[in-house]
Amino acid sequence: MEMKKQSVPLPLLVMGCGGVGRQLLHHIVSCRSLHAKQGLQLRVVGVCDSQSLVLTADVFTMELSDTSLMEICQKKSSGSPLTALNDFGECQIFRNSEATRKIVEIAALLGRSTGLVLIDCSASSDTIRVLNGVVDLGCCIVLANKKPLTSGIEDYEKLVSHLRHIRYESTVGAGLPVITSLNRIIASGDPIHRIVGSLSGTLGYVMSELEDGKPFSQVVRGAKGLGYTEPDPRDDLGGMDVARKALILARLLGWRINLDSIKVDSLYPDAMAPDTMSVEDFLNNGLPSLDNGIEERVKVASSNGNVLRYVCMIEGSRCEVGLKELPKDSPLGRLRGSDNVLEIYSRCYQELPLVIQGAGAGNDTTAAGVLADIVDLQDLFH
Amino acid sequence: MEMKKQSVPLPLLVMGCGGVGRQLLHHIVSCRSLHAKQGLQLRVVGVCDSQSLVLTADVFTMELSDTSLMEICQKKSSGSPLTALNDFGECQIFRNSEATRKIVEIAALLGRSTGLVLIDCSASSDTIRVLNGVVDLGCCIVLANKKPLTSGIEDYEKLVSHLRHIRYESTVGAGLPVITSLNRIIASGDPIHRIVGSLSGTLGYVMSELEDGKPFSQVVRGAKGLGYTEPDPRDDLGGMDVARKALILARLLGWRINLDSIKVDSLYPDAMAPDTMSVEDFLNNGLPSLDNGIEERVKVASSNGNVLRYVCMIEGSRCEVGLKELPKDSPLGRLRGSDNVLEIYSRCYQELPLVIQGAGAGNDTTAAGVLADIVDLQDLFH
Repeated sequence: MEMKKQSVPLPLLVMGCGGVGRQLLHHIVSCRSLHAKQGLQLRVVGVCDSQSLVLTADVFTMELSDTSLMEICQKKSSGSPLTALNDFGECQIFRNSEATRKIVEIAALLGRSTGLVLIDCSASSDTIRVLNGVVDLGCCIVLANKKPLTSGIEDYEKLVSHLRHIRYESTVGAGLPVITSLNRIIASGDPIHRIVGSLSGTLGYVMSELEDGKPFSQVVRGAKGLGYTEPDPRDDLGGMDVARKALILARLLGWRINLDSIKVDSLYPDAMAPDTMSVEDFLNNGLPSLDNGIEERVKVASSNGNVLRYVCMIEGSRCEVGLKELPKDSPLGRLRGSDNVLEIYSRCYQELPLVIQGAGAGNDTTAAGVLADIVDLQDLFH
Repeated sequence: MEMKKQSVPLPLLVMGCGGVGRQLLHHIVSCRSLHAKQGLQLRVVGVCDSQSLVLTADVFTMELSDTSLMEICQKKSSGSPLTALNDFGECQIFRNSEATRKIVEIAALLGRSTGLVLIDCSASSDTIRVLNGVVDLGCCIVLANKKPLTSGIEDYEKLVSHLRHIRYESTVGAGLPVITSLNRIIASGDPIHRIVGSLSGTLGYVMSELEDGKPFSQVVRGAKGLGYTEPDPRDDLGGMDVARKALILARLLGWRINLDSIKVDSLYPDAMAPDTMSVEDFLNNGLPSLDNGIEERVKVASSNGNVLRYVCMIEGSRCEVGLKELPKDSPLGRLRGSDNVLEIYSRCYQELPLVIQGAGAGNDTTAAGVLADIVDLQDLFH
């Protein structure tokens, strides 16, 4: 096969050095020769966490070496902040507001010359300002972070105003080709009338375990023990994470709505909210008091030949997140374990949906999705 | 949302005016305003069938009008060849070898100036020469036709030598995001170790109907009656169509193999091949004699808790197409009707696969996949 000639390296700036960000750096390093074969070269010019930015000495020509990237990963995974990297070869370190200012400055320098991809692997709302600041500077944006896409509609519309410059596959279903597939269906003019999905591995696991008759409290505690839940399981049970994913999908379909337009059924009552009850208290006393109510709903569903699933549902003018009874013998009804499933109904997929199913969480898969997004942007730079 | 400024129209040349080609022209026309909103304008400069090429008067600035495109569709669907369009407004018509020469000439003119996307919606092997002739002229290629990707490995490698200039989603599973998803997994460096798929709607339907105990011959004749099979059902039962899809997937994974390296189990013996037995004779006498053998295999599978599926399997160094026993309770085992299913196993999808399921045939879906491919190429032209 004829080798494509080596293209100009594509500059990246990675925001967020948590599990996903670090895994992404690992993937970038380990894919160097694979990408070279395809004529693609990625050049990481900077990495930042919430407090500081490590930047290569010359953003036009240099990059953080693989050794530096791995050192950053090691430091961060041992709990040190980037600021602990004081003596860091030929790099510059910028802190706090200076770091933010510097990112916008680099975006202005590189956006329309070499190009620049800003990658948000953080879980912060604070990156919105920076991202919206660089969007008109010719930069591309890749997001694993849901927050920038789920704040106010004005912020969203600004962010996606250059449609082909932004990718965010890993915000829904991790690396699963959810956004990609929806974008293809939309591009072909096939109208989507219904999306139903189980988009929380945690809640998918919980709901399928309930079918075996186990009490809700036991299943949730078990999931926590397996590391399937957030440290405070209410962060999963409240449904807000699923609601953010539903909002991203609804907005992709062109709905001009905000997070508060989505009806969200929480699996625990307000009286057990984090500001009234400690995690400990919730697990020991709150949760068990919910067992009977949930058991009753599971039984009713079962007597209708259905199962209960915690889903997002986008249809007609409704965008809802919560428990739904679904046929046992549907892709969602058959779901076991922590896989995500999405059913898409359109003109082409009218009676039987297009179904995408698989692992929808995990740093490896999420970072793989981010990297695929970056590679997908290369056609803009040639 | 800020409107992206109108870009230069992207010239298209559509080869093949069968069901898929005509449906594509319909989709292009009906998506005009949708695409305009995204700053995309498609300009069809020519349409050809196996004998002739209808070309706009000036390929640099003009296009076939929507009225002309619809007239072409109407003529072709009523069985007339393009040559019947003698008095066709401001168009030129070229015939036979003159048509082929003209296509290469246009590719040379437009490829590196305005760009040109050559779209192969035919089912012919004859387009390979033209496609390989334009690949080095800066043109892009979109295929619904499997033949150019499944001839000799040299032809294939030539065709995909400019990796980012070719798309062929609709060659496998129609509009299902199969190639797109595999490309994303490959781009992210996630090694794929196993692909299993039911990629023939016809054979998927036949195999799932057999589970109900119906005789093979009755199921196949029923499928033919429903229009699910080719006019000669042996074109489906022989497995070569599935083998071509398997070859496309294997080559995508980097396997340098040819069609004859794939082990293909035909569902009928050589003695019933089209050159020895008429379709009539096969349906009335050949098919029924196969009933007992197939029934036996279905029973054996069932006694093992499995079901029989006609699948392609790519794993280790094997690429095979044929009947396999699969667990009843797997995505492939649960398959009913004519949906396609693909299971992909990789590092990220290790124990539970990434599953893509949905309608894998039909002109509407196939043409929608082609159009999504065209839209996906736009980043190369800006």
